[in-house]
Amino acid sequence: MARRSVGAELPFIGSLSRSQGQLGRQLAQALRNAVKRGDLKPGELLPSSRVLANSLNVARGVVTEAYEQLVAEGVLESRAKAGTRVSRALGNESTREVTRPMSEATQPKALPRSVAHYEKVADEFSPLPHVPFTISVPVNQTVPEDIWRRIGNRVRARGPGAPAGYDHQQGAEVLREEIADYVRRSRSVHCSANQIVVTSGIQQALYLCCKILLDVGDSVWVEDPAYRGLTAILEHSVPGTNMVPIPVDDEGMDVNVGIEIAKSAKAAFVTPSHQYPLGMPLSMSRRNALLAWAREANAWIVEDDYDSELRYAGHPFPSLQGLDPSRVIYLGTFSKILFPSLRLGYAIVPKGLEKAFCGARALMDRHPPSADQHVLAAFMKEGHLDRHIRKIRGVYAERRLQLTSLIKSAIPSSLAWLQPSDQGMHLILWITTGIDDKMLAKAALEQGVAARAVSTMYASKSNRSGLVLGLGDFSDEQIAYGVNVLAKLILGAHSKK
Amino acid sequence: MARRSVGAELPFIGSLSRSQGQLGRQLAQALRNAVKRGDLKPGELLPSSRVLANSLNVARGVVTEAYEQLVAEGVLESRAKAGTRVSRALGNESTREVTRPMSEATQPKALPRSVAHYEKVADEFSPLPHVPFTISVPVNQTVPEDIWRRIGNRVRARGPGAPAGYDHQQGAEVLREEIADYVRRSRSVHCSANQIVVTSGIQQALYLCCKILLDVGDSVWVEDPAYRGLTAILEHSVPGTNMVPIPVDDEGMDVNVGIEIAKSAKAAFVTPSHQYPLGMPLSMSRRNALLAWAREANAWIVEDDYDSELRYAGHPFPSLQGLDPSRVIYLGTFSKILFPSLRLGYAIVPKGLEKAFCGARALMDRHPPSADQHVLAAFMKEGHLDRHIRKIRGVYAERRLQLTSLIKSAIPSSLAWLQPSDQGMHLILWITTGIDDKMLAKAALEQGVAARAVSTMYASKSNRSGLVLGLGDFSDEQIAYGVNVLAKLILGAHSKK
Repeated sequence: MARRSVGAELPFIGSLSRSQGQLGRQLAQALRNAVKRGDLKPGELLPSSRVLANSLNVARGVVTEAYEQLVAEGVLESRAKAGTRVSRALGNESTREVTRPMSEATQPKALPRSVAHYEKVADEFSPLPHVPFTISVPVNQTVPEDIWRRIGNRVRARGPGAPAGYDHQQGAEVLREEIADYVRRSRSVHCSANQIVVTSGIQQALYLCCKILLDVGDSVWVEDPAYRGLTAILEHSVPGTNMVPIPVDDEGMDVNVGIEIAKSAKAAFVTPSHQYPLGMPLSMSRRNALLAWAREANAWIVEDDYDSELRYAGHPFPSLQGLDPSRVIYLGTFSKILFPSLRLGYAIVPKGLEKAFCGARALMDRHPPSADQHVLAAFMKEGHLDRHIRKIRGVYAERRLQLTSLIKSAIPSSLAWLQPSDQGMHLILWITTGIDDKMLAKAALEQGVAARAVSTMYASKSNRSGLVLGLGDFSDEQIAYGVNVLAKLILGAHSKK
Repeated sequence: MARRSVGAELPFIGSLSRSQGQLGRQLAQALRNAVKRGDLKPGELLPSSRVLANSLNVARGVVTEAYEQLVAEGVLESRAKAGTRVSRALGNESTREVTRPMSEATQPKALPRSVAHYEKVADEFSPLPHVPFTISVPVNQTVPEDIWRRIGNRVRARGPGAPAGYDHQQGAEVLREEIADYVRRSRSVHCSANQIVVTSGIQQALYLCCKILLDVGDSVWVEDPAYRGLTAILEHSVPGTNMVPIPVDDEGMDVNVGIEIAKSAKAAFVTPSHQYPLGMPLSMSRRNALLAWAREANAWIVEDDYDSELRYAGHPFPSLQGLDPSRVIYLGTFSKILFPSLRLGYAIVPKGLEKAFCGARALMDRHPPSADQHVLAAFMKEGHLDRHIRKIRGVYAERRLQLTSLIKSAIPSSLAWLQPSDQGMHLILWITTGIDDKMLAKAALEQGVAARAVSTMYASKSNRSGLVLGLGDFSDEQIAYGVNVLAKLILGAHSKK
């Protein structure tokens, strides 16, 4: 039962009409309606007659008259020092009317065209529960809990993390300095802090790239299969552009096919470190071919480097950005190496584009929230991010091995097999043709096991069937249970074929 | 001087080519280039020869050969237990080359068409310094500091505010419940928590409304003058729509003019509680006329209620949403009543549009950061927001009176006069024609006094000149200084006319 005061103002009253006289009765009727409609809840404290009369600009007697009438009716209750409240007894009445005002019953409106599209997107992006094999769930050792929290408390207590006014669109300079240093050391990315725009994760960075780089009529290369967070933007949010899916093979995006079918595209979106979702890196010769094409076509390359920190073997290729900083927009995120609910990532843009990114971002949401940017900057400056990455690399490497060996022993390799990959936070489990990965994902979810279907990430209807299995620091039991559920479902589906 | 390790991987090395032989020399050359280009900074620790050899898949001797060569050259330095570092002495050399790689010098690219537009927006939205009369700067008593921080520390320490995985697009349910209760009590808004989408302030909510409600060819009413955060979206980010500016008079947006010139518009964006920037409320008869038109035209109304909490006199009109919840999208924000750097606001949408808003939002940035949503929910649940609003209302009322009387005594009313208004966090100071408000704002900023020019908020070139003066809990001295600077500038500009 609500106990809070409704404040001095009762906006639902609207205005009382002097010309109609009987102000006390008008007010009583307005309050009666408000209780009926649920504008006022049982137990809620009304303003004193003096305060309300003042606010309504009527004599105090008008308000006391209305209050007394309603107390008599049992709608309000009044006690000496406790003031006047909506009768608490009304909370128990099963007969209490809770219908909405009449006007809500006006005829249903024709919905805008975009609604159906965005509803589909909402379903597709609806978050998976935090169970195996949902990607990037910080649990156990992968949570940066204690240090993160201590730094947070400190940075919020004084100075940069404290409540503040509107801030710069580009993000906090201290954080941009740390990011510039970090990507130089870890990814050979060449930039100054001025070229960095702090974003709400890679999703916002992709959106900004689409809005800024593409115009009506422009073609754009995307990988096939691709991250749906990108292709869903291109399908509807940047009208008039022409998305060209380029097939992916063992060396990543097949640049020659791109040149064959859409040589004059304005941009190419790639995940060169770890193709999403399949997991292979873009080979060195393809990197060179892609950059050569971009120079020739005067095109932009958007390098989505969402999880390159998590390598378990081998030597990384240099980033595309490091090879040609003038035409590559490099995107990174802290969702994978720290935690997704932080919503912090970054775009590193060629000189000359910085300000346009700031302007486009200002229109989307002004600027990133300030406090966590300063917490993150301090976390990086004090070396905790480097340590945290070293730690989770070990954890994920172990979880990966464990998952791999459990799958191999539980499911015959003729029915399901893992895509080779030596990095990242997810694995692809290919399923034999004839078993629908979407049905499989749905059935697994009903048993508390989460996975995304690979077929939904292909541009055209694909007959490839597979599941994206995310790594998290889930317990041995959870992982074993998850594999067991998948194995049963796959074996069951196969026997029914 | 950098002291951090560069990690086990040196991505800038690329791959060594066995066919070219002399792997040690190749590696030495790659490291030499990396130091030259700044990929490796003076003092940075290199991986051990064992780790690097492993990562590059070469014999350990290859790495030790390269390291020894570079130590001999003075590029690296090596100490028994401290490992091998980039020579610290290089940090002092003024001759150190810092040029970027060759490739950056490729011919300048033709910039996308949108760049010029977004650059202009970036300038316009560039935040004002936190001095009088910048709007919504939390200082002194208007900062919710202690309680906010204590709740934050608690909520982050366990449960809902701790690091987490991907979350729902719509925002945390506990916060949506609190908002539903709050807008019912304070604004007579009718909704369930399911109809609320938590956004990054009103800016993101406006962007979502534009993307979802409008289609190519649609007309849309906006106030004239209007909030630039809205009109700038319509100018470029929603291509193909037709923005129709509707003049504002003493009763707010002139609905009859709208019906005359664009009867079949698909939506109207209004600030009915406190017209932005001018400050008058939309009269009750205009509210009714607007709703009647919307029903007739089957149009949506977007009610931007950015600062209605801050009333200093009189009784508020009921919200448009409360009068017809089926066709009004109601927008609110915590930027004004708490602080802007929090970046939390909300859209309350008619039933049937909830999911589309979630989908469109998912493409922009997935979901709002989680922790602060839970902090805010607890802050509201425990009654602190109500108390904070009561407190800042008093503070702003006092600051408002003080500013008003200082202005009246310092500037002759023939040269500058205040727009009557009884609410909000800003005042409009009209300036006599012939004095350019943009020049005035620029000159004031040079003396540490911030104000936005009203003329920039009109759709057409207006000859009205005025300044938006934001309220904050600035000190008496700061306010007096600010008024003094404005008075001198206005008197000076007048004498030069």
